Amino acid sequence: MEHLREKTLSSTEIYNGNIIKVSLDEVELPNGHTSKREIVRHPGAVAIIALTDEKKLLLVRQYRKPLDMIIYEIPAGKLEPGEKPFDCARRELEEETGYKSDSIKHIQSFYTSPGFADEIVHVYYTDRLEKLENSAGLDDDEFLDLLEVTLDEAGTLIEENKIYDAKTVYAVQYLQLKQSQGLL
Amino acid sequence: MEHLREKTLSSTEIYNGNIIKVSLDEVELPNGHTSKREIVRHPGAVAIIALTDEKKLLLVRQYRKPLDMIIYEIPAGKLEPGEKPFDCARRELEEETGYKSDSIKHIQSFYTSPGFADEIVHVYYTDRLEKLENSAGLDDDEFLDLLEVTLDEAGTLIEENKIYDAKTVYAVQYLQLKQSQGLL
Repeated sequence: MEHLREKTLSSTEIYNGNIIKVSLDEVELPNGHTSKREIVRHPGAVAIIALTDEKKLLLVRQYRKPLDMIIYEIPAGKLEPGEKPFDCARRELEEETGYKSDSIKHIQSFYTSPGFADEIVHVYYTDRLEKLENSAGLDDDEFLDLLEVTLDEAGTLIEENKIYDAKTVYAVQYLQLKQSQGLL
Repeated sequence: MEHLREKTLSSTEIYNGNIIKVSLDEVELPNGHTSKREIVRHPGAVAIIALTDEKKLLLVRQYRKPLDMIIYEIPAGKLEPGEKPFDCARRELEEETGYKSDSIKHIQSFYTSPGFADEIVHVYYTDRLEKLENSAGLDDDEFLDLLEVTLDEAGTLIEENKIYDAKTVYAVQYLQLKQSQGLL
């Protein structure tokens, strides 16, 4: 499949931020012409589909500055430098929800925006939650509400554009598929 | 829900590119403290779940520079300035696959990376395709292979990390759910 590959001729750093890095790369296209590619580098993230004993889905409601909207998402967070996705999933679950789990399994990873960014999200699942007495708590700049919703309620939140992001739409669909197969 | 909202104190342009814009915003947090938000602006995109008469899914295989990988995705593309998502879906289907459809319906929109970007993807569905005699063809800097795969084959491509992006993983799950409900 080498007829599809692009060769990097040069890479210019545009921005080296706290979370993202941006570069402008010049590439040689398969036909020998050149083009530019704007690329955002991101540390990657995890997300957790977490069901309570009552089969309710844990959601966090938070303000998202890029959208200027308050939306409902499954618990998620960025990988710390050197952190393994599994450890990050355990940490974010505890920090954002006050629940812990000894039974978290990886179900899927995906790139969110392969056209311009390298962000990958590793999605985990658990239906064995244990309430923590003392939670580690949120990051200094993080404010959110915790909710527990039924699968029907989650479907309604999608229709109302309150669940509005890829990982959470995926999560609800994952549970709907499980349910339709009699596995929930 | 005003206890979650952040107030923009200032916005500094970092980069104004061909496709993305990057800014660094200073915000006032709900607790009165200040923080910084790195924000990527993107024009938005469409993606099309397109099934042939044989119930095969159209995929395009292409090199993605940010990942340095060749992956398989459902046909998709960025919105042109002022272009409506529906028109973009028709255009991208024709350009990338050489098929047209008079029966395209919107099924879902989602933000891909609400933590740092405002990119939204509008997902459309069609199972009525008509082969074009003369296709408009691809953009100058676009190179891809067209494939038609069964739903089982798509599942295998996910396991092999060849289908590896959010919209395509979503698309395959969407079809699996439809199938499990006897609608495919």
